[in-house]
Amino acid sequence: MLHGNYGNIAIEELQLKTPVDPAGWTHVENLDKSLEAKQVLIRGRVQAIRPVGKKMAFLVVRENGFMVQAQQYLVSVQMVKYAAALSRESVIDVEGVVSVPSEQIKATTQQVEVQVRKLYCVSRALPTLRINLEDAARSEAEIEKALQAGEQLSQVGNAFRQFLLSEGFVEIHTPRLIARSSEGGAAVFRLDYKGHPACLAQSPQLHKQMAICADFGRVFEIGPVFRAEDSFTHRHLCEFTGLDVEMEIKKHYYEVMDIVDRLFVSIFDSLNQNCKKDLENVARQYPFEPLKYLRQTLRLTYEEGVQMLKDAGTEIEPFGDLNTEAERKLGQLVLEKYGTKFYILYQYPLAVRPFYTMPCYDNPQYSNSFDVFIRGEEIISGAQRVQNAEMLEKRSESCGIDVKTISTYIDSFRYGAPTHGGFGVVLERVVMLFCGLNNIRKTSLYPRDPQRIAP
Amino acid sequence: MLHGNYGNIAIEELQLKTPVDPAGWTHVENLDKSLEAKQVLIRGRVQAIRPVGKKMAFLVVRENGFMVQAQQYLVSVQMVKYAAALSRESVIDVEGVVSVPSEQIKATTQQVEVQVRKLYCVSRALPTLRINLEDAARSEAEIEKALQAGEQLSQVGNAFRQFLLSEGFVEIHTPRLIARSSEGGAAVFRLDYKGHPACLAQSPQLHKQMAICADFGRVFEIGPVFRAEDSFTHRHLCEFTGLDVEMEIKKHYYEVMDIVDRLFVSIFDSLNQNCKKDLENVARQYPFEPLKYLRQTLRLTYEEGVQMLKDAGTEIEPFGDLNTEAERKLGQLVLEKYGTKFYILYQYPLAVRPFYTMPCYDNPQYSNSFDVFIRGEEIISGAQRVQNAEMLEKRSESCGIDVKTISTYIDSFRYGAPTHGGFGVVLERVVMLFCGLNNIRKTSLYPRDPQRIAP
Repeated sequence: MLHGNYGNIAIEELQLKTPVDPAGWTHVENLDKSLEAKQVLIRGRVQAIRPVGKKMAFLVVRENGFMVQAQQYLVSVQMVKYAAALSRESVIDVEGVVSVPSEQIKATTQQVEVQVRKLYCVSRALPTLRINLEDAARSEAEIEKALQAGEQLSQVGNAFRQFLLSEGFVEIHTPRLIARSSEGGAAVFRLDYKGHPACLAQSPQLHKQMAICADFGRVFEIGPVFRAEDSFTHRHLCEFTGLDVEMEIKKHYYEVMDIVDRLFVSIFDSLNQNCKKDLENVARQYPFEPLKYLRQTLRLTYEEGVQMLKDAGTEIEPFGDLNTEAERKLGQLVLEKYGTKFYILYQYPLAVRPFYTMPCYDNPQYSNSFDVFIRGEEIISGAQRVQNAEMLEKRSESCGIDVKTISTYIDSFRYGAPTHGGFGVVLERVVMLFCGLNNIRKTSLYPRDPQRIAP
Repeated sequence: MLHGNYGNIAIEELQLKTPVDPAGWTHVENLDKSLEAKQVLIRGRVQAIRPVGKKMAFLVVRENGFMVQAQQYLVSVQMVKYAAALSRESVIDVEGVVSVPSEQIKATTQQVEVQVRKLYCVSRALPTLRINLEDAARSEAEIEKALQAGEQLSQVGNAFRQFLLSEGFVEIHTPRLIARSSEGGAAVFRLDYKGHPACLAQSPQLHKQMAICADFGRVFEIGPVFRAEDSFTHRHLCEFTGLDVEMEIKKHYYEVMDIVDRLFVSIFDSLNQNCKKDLENVARQYPFEPLKYLRQTLRLTYEEGVQMLKDAGTEIEPFGDLNTEAERKLGQLVLEKYGTKFYILYQYPLAVRPFYTMPCYDNPQYSNSFDVFIRGEEIISGAQRVQNAEMLEKRSESCGIDVKTISTYIDSFRYGAPTHGGFGVVLERVVMLFCGLNNIRKTSLYPRDPQRIAP
């Protein structure tokens, strides 16, 4: 590989012209007793260095959260000196022979050691990291933490997509740059689009509905959505990943709730099955109780919810909305009575829902809508939509929205529109609440809030 | 279902409180001879209406591109009159009995008919659509077209994701709102972010590299990217769907090209296998030759490409870039010589690549980079990245970029950075070129160009 047995690998030495044989490398994760006495080549970061006299050094090499102890002695004094002078977090290549130690090794590393023959540094970390030595342990936990949240976001997204694809949904991509606010309200980022005023989409609401009008049947989208809210709460971000669903319904918006029910049970099952180790790691740093959920999701009407709160001494305006505190309290009451931390509350007062929400036919003070809660916090908002252009015009006017500003949207219902409904979910919020985390920023790689636009 | 045998279904009648049994409905696609004499319930759009006297009407019902002829007679004169007065594209429910006609039916519809017993209109289209009658056929083809492009985008995205997940890549979500331009240059949308200047990401380039620095190992992202270019070409959009990959490499950027090679062969295979019918439909409207590609993708150096052009009489500046015309010509030459319309051109001149591209160790006029072409047009740009902070500073200065504006990015390489590389793809362009379409707008549901921000 190189001429000597140790040293820094210069960029040019890495760039050999022969394609690398990926089989030539062993992942630290896969180092076990079956490889005893075999020669291996590993790449990882220096987790720790411990020189023992001048003839020997212990290195702990970390790759993807897995660690192995590499023992180096007797090759040469210079080489031991070179190893001892490596900075922590540097990326190194180790060629060596796997050995099984006679004594028990720490449980946090692989159960074999590597006897180092060759040692090269691929990329050297600054000798002093920007964090205090005392914080070093926590910092590594934070690194792992980010990794785990990344894996879980990925897992939730995959489970969401796989379930919907298996149910005949088509994934679509709708524009983030739109001429006008998609949801009304002030919390919208504005920009100049080639001389025209434009907004960043707060949701793909109008466009996913238009896809239904174009006979896509069942659609979903996973993509960024933007809210220019001045929110410094634990659960708001200015940019997050939206999971959006829209579907034709035959008769009733219960069909949408059926999808929510089965979709989320399948997401939770998949997290519990496929992210066991990650969830344990999260729980070590931020202890939480596993989410309690039923095989068939509990459904309560808004009225029933208000009654439960009333019985427990909390008065709620019957045609208003629940505030965060009331939602938490109701979550507690539901847990006590039904033994679940995941449930659907449906048939909300019409007044607290957006203009495109279908009113309840037998009581127009209510609407064909629902919210879904995990651990007492809302994660999903969904509803049947008004698919009649005239009714939409009336509803938007009564909600103070100028019909002219959404005319292309309303027009798309004039040519025969399927009955339909859907819902939206915040990916980061699902991960936060599944893991019982106290802040949504812990689930985002690069969180965006009113004071944070970098890195 | 309803009291009468026909009529308009009012919103409230749809909203029965009993959950619908999805098994109660039959998709038009599934209507075949095995259902002869069975009663079925279908929902679809009125594709055509043909009254025959006063006692009979033929209706063609379309659902998801599949059509069936529904025959209605003898139930009542009023009901025939009601059917004949339906507007085209209205959404209707038909309850009836499947019959097998004695004569051969048109190949474009299902091979059975439905004898109508009940007929309800769920959503009535405006009697005059906004398109001329003469255009009606084309218009429906356009509707189908959009559908197919949607399915293919979905299919390319899925194949991309499935392959990468199977290779150990993690899906990430990086911010679209960033403090500074991710790629330099002027083609960036700017906005005010809570009093701070901000940009819309032109690519997740810097953030996906930072994820590699945080030891994610192999990452990918599928999401919108934004270019404020004043481009009115057939292949530029102001907002498109970017497929981005970044990965650690052990030795050589050939490892990245290996992924590109296998990834795209798998995407093309999956399109050919799973979108047969859609591709035939596209070809009916916009005839194209199926894409020729090799099981192992051809790789040529930039130098070899320039030589081929030279031999064919086209002189190229050896350390400049290929223009669109030269790329097309080279595509033609490659097809003639190697029998493929999909190939990789690598080792580009350093001067024409972004600042974060790794120079070639044995000839710093070249770089460890590549482009990938379909039918003579570029669809992928990739490279090994500079992972050394000092080298990055030098490179960005020599490219005229103020180091201060990208300090968080450069700093992330100071703590030991894995050797890595990656690439970016435009989803819409892959679909356009796979299908030999002449305009990228045909592959986007809601295309965005300098003059188009709605709907």
